Amino acid sequence: MAQAPKITRISPLSADEAKWTELQKIEWQDQTGKDRIWEAAARKTRGKTGVDAVAIAPILRHPNRPPSTLIILQYRPPVEAMCVEFPAGLIDEGETPEEAAVRELREETGYEGKVCDDSATLSNQPGMTNATHQVLDCSPTIVSDPGLTTANMQMVTIEVNLNEGDEEPDQHLDEGEHIERRVVPLTELYDTLQALSKEDGKIVDARLYHWALGLHWSTRIFGKQS
Amino acid sequence: MAQAPKITRISPLSADEAKWTELQKIEWQDQTGKDRIWEAAARKTRGKTGVDAVAIAPILRHPNRPPSTLIILQYRPPVEAMCVEFPAGLIDEGETPEEAAVRELREETGYEGKVCDDSATLSNQPGMTNATHQVLDCSPTIVSDPGLTTANMQMVTIEVNLNEGDEEPDQHLDEGEHIERRVVPLTELYDTLQALSKEDGKIVDARLYHWALGLHWSTRIFGKQS
Repeated sequence: MAQAPKITRISPLSADEAKWTELQKIEWQDQTGKDRIWEAAARKTRGKTGVDAVAIAPILRHPNRPPSTLIILQYRPPVEAMCVEFPAGLIDEGETPEEAAVRELREETGYEGKVCDDSATLSNQPGMTNATHQVLDCSPTIVSDPGLTTANMQMVTIEVNLNEGDEEPDQHLDEGEHIERRVVPLTELYDTLQALSKEDGKIVDARLYHWALGLHWSTRIFGKQS
Repeated sequence: MAQAPKITRISPLSADEAKWTELQKIEWQDQTGKDRIWEAAARKTRGKTGVDAVAIAPILRHPNRPPSTLIILQYRPPVEAMCVEFPAGLIDEGETPEEAAVRELREETGYEGKVCDDSATLSNQPGMTNATHQVLDCSPTIVSDPGLTTANMQMVTIEVNLNEGDEEPDQHLDEGEHIERRVVPLTELYDTLQALSKEDGKIVDARLYHWALGLHWSTRIFGKQS
């Protein structure tokens, strides 16, 4: 029986009680040699790879639909809202970022990506006969909010080539995961995010919004050939 | 005498000692009615507007230079690196996000923006006789890392129209601020961020990277008219 998620209590969390997060006191010297202090929050879960998380920008190709992306909606307690995001997740021990990206994309959306050695080719022809799904691009390590946290991530762009008649795949969600997915044409993404932001109880992730804003201004500044 | 900033000590920060940040224990009920707990980090500085911070995507127009943006480099203790970011800052009490954006852009880069009532027009002609600088777009409230923190922000796009012969303006940095600025043509931003990521001790902010990635894929997918 589905209900709207809700917060029942927010209370201060002591360092002793915190399992997943911690606050750090950073003592540092600035460019003039002055001793300074910075406060930061960190995840305790970072593995050997040194990278917390991976997000996926899916690019969906279809013979007769416009190039699209996949976004997800899930409840995020820290912001007390259904958050509109790219598929994403923490990197498991022993995984490469590309492997984590392919796994998370499959779990959260059902769409299958593939880690390729030759990952540099973006398909130019939307009407292809064999479905190919590949990692097009893996970002360097980037940081999510470097004034406040140590959190870092990598951003993986995965092209999913669909064929005429392909059905929407099933999600493979973990117990307790409630994730809604939406396919959005790239040319409509900016307006879709604006509209979702106006809906009660929804908020957009800053990284997804920036990606959409980059697409939007590119079209406004350089024009568009579709 | 400038030196490279350096970290001398990182230690756990107790809730009592933390001035700017805090950890929260969030008790919530999920879609199935199950009681769950989430840990989050928060800034203690959020004012009445309910928004922590503002970032600025500057779009620089010049009669005979390509459309460009402005990025900054500053040391960020939480990530122990010079971080490559859009200009940004916390919103002061009583400021609108647009006012904070114009102030931060001026302080961090010297470039002057202006809050306009009629903010919907992107100049189509690069060769204009009067300099105009205006807020083109202000995002809804978006969230920086909603799995980990309560942090939120707004993203303001400011067009700065330069004239032939305009000199690079002076920054207006606060005591203790050390910020380097760079003008980067939009068509070179993605490659510039890749190159900066490879330099020792530098890391790119995820939001700036996503904006650049949006520009990059837009050009790859839709083509470019320059």
